[in-house]
Amino acid sequence: MKKIESHRSFAGHQEVWEHQSEVLGVPMKVGVWVPDGADHTTPVLYFLSGLTCTEQNFITKSGFQRIASELKVLVVAPDTSPRGEGVPNDDAYDLGQGAGFYVNATQAPWSKHFKMYDYITKELLALVENQFPNSGKRGIFGHSMGGHGALMIALKNPGMFQSVSAFSPIVAPTQVPWGEKAFGAYLGPDREAWKAWDTCELIKSAKERLHILVDQGADDNFLPQLQPELLKEACEAHDHPLTLRMHSGFDHSYYFISTFIEDHFRHFASSI
Amino acid sequence: MKKIESHRSFAGHQEVWEHQSEVLGVPMKVGVWVPDGADHTTPVLYFLSGLTCTEQNFITKSGFQRIASELKVLVVAPDTSPRGEGVPNDDAYDLGQGAGFYVNATQAPWSKHFKMYDYITKELLALVENQFPNSGKRGIFGHSMGGHGALMIALKNPGMFQSVSAFSPIVAPTQVPWGEKAFGAYLGPDREAWKAWDTCELIKSAKERLHILVDQGADDNFLPQLQPELLKEACEAHDHPLTLRMHSGFDHSYYFISTFIEDHFRHFASSI
Repeated sequence: MKKIESHRSFAGHQEVWEHQSEVLGVPMKVGVWVPDGADHTTPVLYFLSGLTCTEQNFITKSGFQRIASELKVLVVAPDTSPRGEGVPNDDAYDLGQGAGFYVNATQAPWSKHFKMYDYITKELLALVENQFPNSGKRGIFGHSMGGHGALMIALKNPGMFQSVSAFSPIVAPTQVPWGEKAFGAYLGPDREAWKAWDTCELIKSAKERLHILVDQGADDNFLPQLQPELLKEACEAHDHPLTLRMHSGFDHSYYFISTFIEDHFRHFASSI
Repeated sequence: MKKIESHRSFAGHQEVWEHQSEVLGVPMKVGVWVPDGADHTTPVLYFLSGLTCTEQNFITKSGFQRIASELKVLVVAPDTSPRGEGVPNDDAYDLGQGAGFYVNATQAPWSKHFKMYDYITKELLALVENQFPNSGKRGIFGHSMGGHGALMIALKNPGMFQSVSAFSPIVAPTQVPWGEKAFGAYLGPDREAWKAWDTCELIKSAKERLHILVDQGADDNFLPQLQPELLKEACEAHDHPLTLRMHSGFDHSYYFISTFIEDHFRHFASSI
């Protein structure tokens, strides 16, 4: 890994690292906030971003560094897809580069590079946790498409994370336009195959009862894509612990994320 | 004024307003954070941004909304220059659009539109304070070119502001390359005329002793343009109260601003 940015930020440094991803076959950038004196007691929190985002959005706009500094947490914010020449793309903002959806694509032309699930779970965690001193305690959270990624990845990997939460997640990608479009392209027409990547489906067979925190703006323009009530129903039907908070007046933006970011760090800190 | 953005943010709304500026002769955008229940007890804090910035940088990257919410302050963040077709510009980032330097230009082609001093002090304050309930108590602060703007404007207008502070300000524009270039273009070759817009010069004849807070990154790449020691010398020589804090490791970025933003709000709150 090569450090390409470093800025002093609260009691730590906001860094951006670049590395050649074996899984994705391209160079990838990742934001890492490193608390001063990081050591074997330092837990690691992963944030997965939403559609159109790079590694920059969360690190420049969420204001997380203040609470990460207080709680002394290593924070990792990867890019949302492979990028660059030679990587397939689409003119739409919700497919291709910037829209990896955290799945392993099986369909051409996406299947060569779009393996964000393997990238996060197999390559990034090992790379980061080998590079930076840490306690081995991990949490994961995300926003929108990244909220889907965080919930889905935690549910598919019992024991890997000690906490999970999300802002405005796509909880049922198999049932909403964003997910139908992306899953159709990346995974093909067989809707049965999509279910392995759908939070509301995965809740049905969850092997651990990790308490899920979800914050959702009640005035989010994208509610038809998000449908938090489907997560509520699935969790109630399958006795899965969920705190779903609907926030009047809030939208889908980083103004919403920054308002409640501290609570997600405290949710993580209280779980490890 | 026309509201063009509104986002719920902590206990308030981050808004962006647009209005036709009579002083500048073009439409201008301004960020306004409005606390819930703003009334005749609500003070107003103005933030002036640095080179290349629009009204967006401070409102999306500084994280000020948390402390503004706690202290219930109306926060106003204007653009840094007139913009658009018909407004003169320069290919360089440090002249023309995005680089108004908060002066009134006297030289063609700039003199028609580049009147940021009059815009801030005469038009914007009246417009904002007519539109939003407030106590009439005001502070001003800024970053880099905007730190220069805040200090210079406060010094030239005794009684207008109850507090002033700055991050990484250009304190002596008449003595550094950024200022020499901009003042030469906007104000012409007579260096005597520049002094009316230079903080270190204005300190010599300051009519009130407003306590200045300055935070400066000790590892800021732009230190040769900023020269905080010149402000220190001027304040010491003329008995002007100054708290100058040099912060080891910090650079010129919003990571620096966000780390210390709370202190500037508390400086303001303790002055009104």
